[in-house]
Amino acid sequence: MASDPEIQTNGDGSQPSRRDLANAIRALAMDAVQAANSGHPGAPMGMADIAEVLWNDYLSHNPTNPLWINRDRFVLSNGHGSMLQYALAHLSGYPLSIDEIRNFRQLGSRTAGHPEYEPEIGIETTTGPLGQGITNGAGMALAEKTLAAHFNRPGHDVVDHRTWVFLGDGCLMEGISHEACSLAGTLKLGKLTCFYDDNGISIDGEVQGWFTDDTPARFEAYGWHVVADVDGHDPAALQSAVDQALASDKPSLICCKTIIGFGSPNKQGTAATHGAPLGDDEIAATRKALGWNYPPFVIPPAISAGWDARSKGEAAEASWNEVFSAYTTEYPDLAAELERRMAGDLPADWAAASDAEIQKIAASTDKNATRKASLITLNAFAPHLPELIGGSADLTGSNLTEHATSKWITGDDADGNYISFGVREFGMAAMLNGIVLHGGFIPYGGTFLTFSDYARNALRMAALMEIQTILVFTHDSIGLGEDGPTHQPVEHVASLRLMPNMAVWRPCDTTETAVAWKDAIERRNGPSSLILSRQGLPAQSRTEEQFANIRKGGYVLRDAAEPQAIVIATGSEVEIAVAAAEALEAEGIAVRVVSMPCVEAFDAQDAAYRESVLPAALDKRVAVEAGVTEGWYRFVGLSGRVIGLDRFGESAPAAQLFEKFGFTADNIKSVVKELL
Amino acid sequence: MASDPEIQTNGDGSQPSRRDLANAIRALAMDAVQAANSGHPGAPMGMADIAEVLWNDYLSHNPTNPLWINRDRFVLSNGHGSMLQYALAHLSGYPLSIDEIRNFRQLGSRTAGHPEYEPEIGIETTTGPLGQGITNGAGMALAEKTLAAHFNRPGHDVVDHRTWVFLGDGCLMEGISHEACSLAGTLKLGKLTCFYDDNGISIDGEVQGWFTDDTPARFEAYGWHVVADVDGHDPAALQSAVDQALASDKPSLICCKTIIGFGSPNKQGTAATHGAPLGDDEIAATRKALGWNYPPFVIPPAISAGWDARSKGEAAEASWNEVFSAYTTEYPDLAAELERRMAGDLPADWAAASDAEIQKIAASTDKNATRKASLITLNAFAPHLPELIGGSADLTGSNLTEHATSKWITGDDADGNYISFGVREFGMAAMLNGIVLHGGFIPYGGTFLTFSDYARNALRMAALMEIQTILVFTHDSIGLGEDGPTHQPVEHVASLRLMPNMAVWRPCDTTETAVAWKDAIERRNGPSSLILSRQGLPAQSRTEEQFANIRKGGYVLRDAAEPQAIVIATGSEVEIAVAAAEALEAEGIAVRVVSMPCVEAFDAQDAAYRESVLPAALDKRVAVEAGVTEGWYRFVGLSGRVIGLDRFGESAPAAQLFEKFGFTADNIKSVVKELL
Repeated sequence: MASDPEIQTNGDGSQPSRRDLANAIRALAMDAVQAANSGHPGAPMGMADIAEVLWNDYLSHNPTNPLWINRDRFVLSNGHGSMLQYALAHLSGYPLSIDEIRNFRQLGSRTAGHPEYEPEIGIETTTGPLGQGITNGAGMALAEKTLAAHFNRPGHDVVDHRTWVFLGDGCLMEGISHEACSLAGTLKLGKLTCFYDDNGISIDGEVQGWFTDDTPARFEAYGWHVVADVDGHDPAALQSAVDQALASDKPSLICCKTIIGFGSPNKQGTAATHGAPLGDDEIAATRKALGWNYPPFVIPPAISAGWDARSKGEAAEASWNEVFSAYTTEYPDLAAELERRMAGDLPADWAAASDAEIQKIAASTDKNATRKASLITLNAFAPHLPELIGGSADLTGSNLTEHATSKWITGDDADGNYISFGVREFGMAAMLNGIVLHGGFIPYGGTFLTFSDYARNALRMAALMEIQTILVFTHDSIGLGEDGPTHQPVEHVASLRLMPNMAVWRPCDTTETAVAWKDAIERRNGPSSLILSRQGLPAQSRTEEQFANIRKGGYVLRDAAEPQAIVIATGSEVEIAVAAAEALEAEGIAVRVVSMPCVEAFDAQDAAYRESVLPAALDKRVAVEAGVTEGWYRFVGLSGRVIGLDRFGESAPAAQLFEKFGFTADNIKSVVKELL
Repeated sequence: MASDPEIQTNGDGSQPSRRDLANAIRALAMDAVQAANSGHPGAPMGMADIAEVLWNDYLSHNPTNPLWINRDRFVLSNGHGSMLQYALAHLSGYPLSIDEIRNFRQLGSRTAGHPEYEPEIGIETTTGPLGQGITNGAGMALAEKTLAAHFNRPGHDVVDHRTWVFLGDGCLMEGISHEACSLAGTLKLGKLTCFYDDNGISIDGEVQGWFTDDTPARFEAYGWHVVADVDGHDPAALQSAVDQALASDKPSLICCKTIIGFGSPNKQGTAATHGAPLGDDEIAATRKALGWNYPPFVIPPAISAGWDARSKGEAAEASWNEVFSAYTTEYPDLAAELERRMAGDLPADWAAASDAEIQKIAASTDKNATRKASLITLNAFAPHLPELIGGSADLTGSNLTEHATSKWITGDDADGNYISFGVREFGMAAMLNGIVLHGGFIPYGGTFLTFSDYARNALRMAALMEIQTILVFTHDSIGLGEDGPTHQPVEHVASLRLMPNMAVWRPCDTTETAVAWKDAIERRNGPSSLILSRQGLPAQSRTEEQFANIRKGGYVLRDAAEPQAIVIATGSEVEIAVAAAEALEAEGIAVRVVSMPCVEAFDAQDAAYRESVLPAALDKRVAVEAGVTEGWYRFVGLSGRVIGLDRFGESAPAAQLFEKFGFTADNIKSVVKELL
């Protein structure tokens, strides 16, 4: 600012009104978007009154200690309204400076175009891809309810907080909102409260042309408590609605009629306010209309004071500390365990216990499908890992995700660790993300690998947020057989590997599967996809060094004195590669077989290790994987060969398909000989 | 069969009952699944009575001419019940022999594990991935309504048929069902009638644990006509329900209470019948319970006669032929045009007209974002192509999918060619598939490239079915700038290229964009993804030969006398590659620039052409694309380099991001020099 502005309390020196407080959001939003020359002022301006009531009257949080474990969770599912989130964080006292808001959408700022997971400033999840925020919220509410069931004791409600979600028309149109909200109703997630920003506008204009749902009726059909027709600009009406929601034991939807871009005299109520700056003239007119007589990025002290939630937050946490202290006295072990789980620390004995379990598992030479190997591992690990919570998108018996200590969670009993998500792959994955984000759990979820497609953007969000979501993807190739090409993954393994920060494990036997699970459990900063076979795979024998190298993602499984060629394989094709190497050896041709269960882990090794596995001089290389070939050329080069499948599969017994498409020892043998 | 069975009419020689007819489906389903030792008997046995009423009393089709353009469309959205579809095709007289049914799920049979698009035997779409069949059905119903609006004239209802969909709990749990059914309500697709197989069972068991929607209320909230609580085993009740549906001008859902595996005395009503053979003993018991005293795969003549729909179908088509004949007399041009469009032939003048339009477009040297170039092309092509129908998932103004002759379709007026799909990417893509499958249209749909993730499995289904769905994916890289990493595609272009039979075009300027559109329009046997920039890209100059080579997917855009290196680039990075080549030339380093807008098209060229563009001897190669690098190694080899982005982007102005991540002429120059 050129001149030092005269700061006023509230015009006449009076306390600011609720509307004045809300206008602070509006001003920050329109000014930040204008400064960035891009962004979405409409939603923050439209939802400012709702946000003011929620944050000042209901939200239990502590900006001074944003990671307080019993804080309420707030999710802005309509993430394009990010300036609402940043304004709230700044105004209520989180460590988000006004300079960060001035730098909205600039390189290196904490105020990205869409909110990026940073709980230190109250951002509980990354949003923007519509429908996923509400689904994360459902996951958080499920985590809270389940954690409460695990830890609360009579008279000791140490886990007791709510999840609040803002969402818009876009979220409600997205299919994932159906998946999440239907399941939230069934699971009776009564502490989930959503505010629907019913402004009648989406990017293409008035939603009547493409969105005519009776949304209250829809949500009642899900078993929700719905408060319809609330004036989203009337604090008293909003309070009454929230009070009704709090009184219900069902998840609640508060349908708020709002005006998008509220306050902009010439643009409010139109799509023009949705995703573009208002412009200097309209901003000036809006200032006038709102009675907001302060320069950009200046919040007068009375308004600041009206928003500052720090002392209230500290008092709330102090009060909870007393509850927790009493709990600690009565249940010291439980208290310590709750703290451990919320800190995200693995159990103290995890390293030793998991190693011992893997040793037992590795001692067996059983031929198992790797999905079965996954179950064996879950059975072994789960008793050591009470934070493990899992489920399947209605394929429990196929994914083999239900282990011996699984207990199914129901709407009436959250004291379990297994969720039957129904046929809702995307909803499952985004709820798993919400469970991780809440804390206290390591969640996994299963479906057929092909249907990773349905969940794909939620996997991407886990990768982007660097959170530990574990996916159990079974039936990983044409090896699933008769169900045919709709269910046979071809491009999926390669496609998951393309996603930055996604660890993709495709183990070849029971031991590699157990190691993959251990890696996934210990990988706290990103998601893992476990790619598992339907069909049985023989156990490979390994030296101790080979066993230790599994974790490195790629290693020499079978070597020769002076190898003339390398065959790289993963998963179900390792068995075939080994058989080919044996056959070639019988003909006097020395071949090294490299098992590469996790390309990302291998890439992360140092150059010396990678060179020891794939020596540059050994450039006669064949990669074998029952899927598309493209990704393997960076290992075999222009002179190598890839045996894969660059077409869709067929419906037939698996063995016939492997034969038909050349996944045989004979074919590998021929290809190696062609190369030499 | 070992012995020649004694064929009976119906036990006592009487005409078969409706139940007897339905039992033919049950017998074929349980016997075929048993023979294959895999499959899903439960749904066909549970829905047999519904199917019998629909096919024998209502469905208007002609097994003798399965491609009759005015046939009703039937979709089995719960595609795992494929034996229901095959039994119906066989029984009603389609050319699907009993041997094909004996060979259920065997290599090379027409009776795959899930129904595969083959209208010649009445399979209107490939189903199995749940929720997509009903969405295809909504697309078909929209196509019918729109085609009727285009062609029908008073007294001449030449386009007048219905779409019937069977669906189960799984379809209703999937989010895409929400997208499709919500939009079907808004668009008043009154000729869409769905039968919900409400059997209370999914794979994990009784659905009460994970699916407690009040489905009738949900669909009423969408504006559907719902007939609730129909006994799905009572033909009279079913007839009454269908008659009610026919009387409504809304889409209809008939909720049928059924027993999964109906007839199996010890397994019906349980998940045990869902996805596994009943077993020989239970099949014997079921035969007894149903009174079905015939050997496997034997249908007695009276039952066959009761099902045979051929003469009724021929009569139906003959009657329509009279309608069409009168129409032809009165509107000969319209009749010819309808026949052309339903045959899938492009307009006679298309080749010349589109070439002329492209010449005009190519003459301009304007700098355009390729999304803008796409709009320019649409404006040029659309007047020549009345079958073009398009839309956007609520990003019309961003995708630039609305062209000068677009007319928006509404619930009350289907006489248009533009659909605002709402924020429903998956629903949009699967509806586009349904529109193609119906015939009469070339459909396209737009969204941001990042949200191709949401639609991914529908793109796969288009690729698998080899149908012409066109996707307009804009904002194709970090070049979208401030919206940040949630909206910045990184892995998406590479990931789409992995999908078999998907043509992925990432043009570098207006001319390449127009050629890509032409290719997409002329590619009748697979989907195309047009990957378009948000930001402006300069026009490249080309010789006539270079222009002609665009269609080959990769070509030399800028050459040097004796090139020392090749830089391969696509889309927005071509401009930078050309600048780098110019800078290198100034330093005396000769570099060839290859523009590769479509890798799939390039791969399809003969070896001589590919060698002319990328000579094996010229192995100093650098690929440049603002996305993940993995796919490019097959062009640059182990000794080449890829300039890409193997991490997520950031929120900032685009130019800063290109600089930060090394997409600059300077960086390309440095990398080329390192290689040499």
